[in-house]
Amino acid sequence: MSSKVVVALDAMGGDYAPVETVKGAIEAVKENPDIKVILVGKEEEINSELARYTYEKDNIEVVNATEVIDMGEVPTKAVREKKDSSLVVAMRLVRDEKADAVVSAGSTGAILVGGQLVVGRIKGIKRPALAPFLPSEKGFSLLIDCGANVDARPEHLVQFAQMGTVYFENVMGKKNPTVGIVNIGTEEEKGNQLVKETYPMLRDCKGINFIGSVEAREIAKGGTDILVCEAFVGNVILKFFEGVALTFLGCIKKGLMASLRTKLGALMIKPALKGLLKTFDVSSQGGAPLLGLKGLVVKAHGNSKSSEIKTAIGQCITFKENSINDKIKEMIQQ
Amino acid sequence: MSSKVVVALDAMGGDYAPVETVKGAIEAVKENPDIKVILVGKEEEINSELARYTYEKDNIEVVNATEVIDMGEVPTKAVREKKDSSLVVAMRLVRDEKADAVVSAGSTGAILVGGQLVVGRIKGIKRPALAPFLPSEKGFSLLIDCGANVDARPEHLVQFAQMGTVYFENVMGKKNPTVGIVNIGTEEEKGNQLVKETYPMLRDCKGINFIGSVEAREIAKGGTDILVCEAFVGNVILKFFEGVALTFLGCIKKGLMASLRTKLGALMIKPALKGLLKTFDVSSQGGAPLLGLKGLVVKAHGNSKSSEIKTAIGQCITFKENSINDKIKEMIQQ
Repeated sequence: MSSKVVVALDAMGGDYAPVETVKGAIEAVKENPDIKVILVGKEEEINSELARYTYEKDNIEVVNATEVIDMGEVPTKAVREKKDSSLVVAMRLVRDEKADAVVSAGSTGAILVGGQLVVGRIKGIKRPALAPFLPSEKGFSLLIDCGANVDARPEHLVQFAQMGTVYFENVMGKKNPTVGIVNIGTEEEKGNQLVKETYPMLRDCKGINFIGSVEAREIAKGGTDILVCEAFVGNVILKFFEGVALTFLGCIKKGLMASLRTKLGALMIKPALKGLLKTFDVSSQGGAPLLGLKGLVVKAHGNSKSSEIKTAIGQCITFKENSINDKIKEMIQQ
Repeated sequence: MSSKVVVALDAMGGDYAPVETVKGAIEAVKENPDIKVILVGKEEEINSELARYTYEKDNIEVVNATEVIDMGEVPTKAVREKKDSSLVVAMRLVRDEKADAVVSAGSTGAILVGGQLVVGRIKGIKRPALAPFLPSEKGFSLLIDCGANVDARPEHLVQFAQMGTVYFENVMGKKNPTVGIVNIGTEEEKGNQLVKETYPMLRDCKGINFIGSVEAREIAKGGTDILVCEAFVGNVILKFFEGVALTFLGCIKKGLMASLRTKLGALMIKPALKGLLKTFDVSSQGGAPLLGLKGLVVKAHGNSKSSEIKTAIGQCITFKENSINDKIKEMIQQ
């Protein structure tokens, strides 16, 4: 493989593909000379987008894939049947070690299924986990798991804590990051069956810095680096957060545009509002990795524009340079 | 019993008891001549608070209770052992039909346990549910269940939908309110085991207006009247919402106070911000009822001031006047 970090980009995935995916790839290779992007998808469409830009030809490659997995498709069926889809072909490049990572803004379900079926799990990992960074007042918390594999067992959650620790340490550069379990109270006896069974296992798990339960009320304030939870709960938290943020900001904007007076006021507080927007911008950390797979799989938000695609591609450098997967293997096999 | 609505108030429950509870009771009887409040708790303390006010003596009664259940206590143990606690004595008044309702801002766990052990479930109800109103852009949604009885079964969730429908219809005055199940996708096959099993049962349930899955992203925007979920998820949503709202507003305020310019701007947009605060004020709807019990049990927020206590007491009128419990019985026995 190239000495560069090679990222296979699902050029057809996402609401604004291939326009924004191709643009994001161009921006990524321009910003990072250590990156090579393989654009996977309908060759003609990709090439006609590429024709708009000037770029170092060595850093961009196109691999044809004739099919596209749509958002509404049943993931398992789509991945199994659409063998020539941009997502599956991109994942095969990782499996065959022709790429280090795959980035896709396509269907989360298909990415999760493809990750497991095509790329494959690290030996010893019982279940991969989707781990986005959630913004908070005090910085970012890694919320693990937000995927679609629901009804997890305690041993899954323990591995989530381990993988999350390795990822957070290497991406955020913080040693011994704190791990909490999302719960409905702070005492050990609180929680549902899953949390009650997982709690003592996390407490006894070596190599992680478990600090106990974290109530949902504390999440936006922040302070815990890794928030462990089962995927249904994680998904609810992530999506609810996005919804609340959007709705709040929408209401504020509407309020600010209500009269001349508020419009003038809005101009004066713009910097303050911008700061808030920046603090709570879910997309600022690029994509969410699907941890526990043999290669890196990054899920970018479905509505990603080029800048989010660029960030998601850039993330792959840290992942490779820090040998995060080797460290996850080590942690699991302890 | 009196022709008035008699509310037993746990005068010792909550962060600001008994100062704010007594004040709230006074405000409630002044506003509603149809209400009588029985203040339950340490007689001396209550009387010394009452001495600050002038009020119609017929509308306020004091019943002594020598013990108090603290927030940190294990609910089952506390309710069983502290038989002379303000909460348990207040609940006994409902059980013995000396009061129509009990309002408490004390420990949620103790209220849930006490409600079941002292007041008792309506025949046929498998599990009572705590059902707060959650603010949204389009109005309020009833989030049921947010209690502490986790790991619910599908038949519980169906009853939550039925009880929620009766409550919403009568309190909000809207016929045939919509019912959704909180889910991580909108298709019927999405969700965890519990949601997948509950979905077809809700679809086939008579007397409710089931509209399918509601993704967490849609909750803040609003539009669904009753959101059915298991208590762990409900509790996470409720607490997360409170946390996000507090943190957002805290950050906005901090940003607005940053400079003279933003301070001036803040003055100009005050009405707009106030509107937002009002729209998303969790406490504006008073307390959350614990539905499915023989009497009405209302849980007020732990940090309730007199106005929230007053609102929670006022709610009890609607509940009694609309014979909500009779209607719940009817709905369940269909």
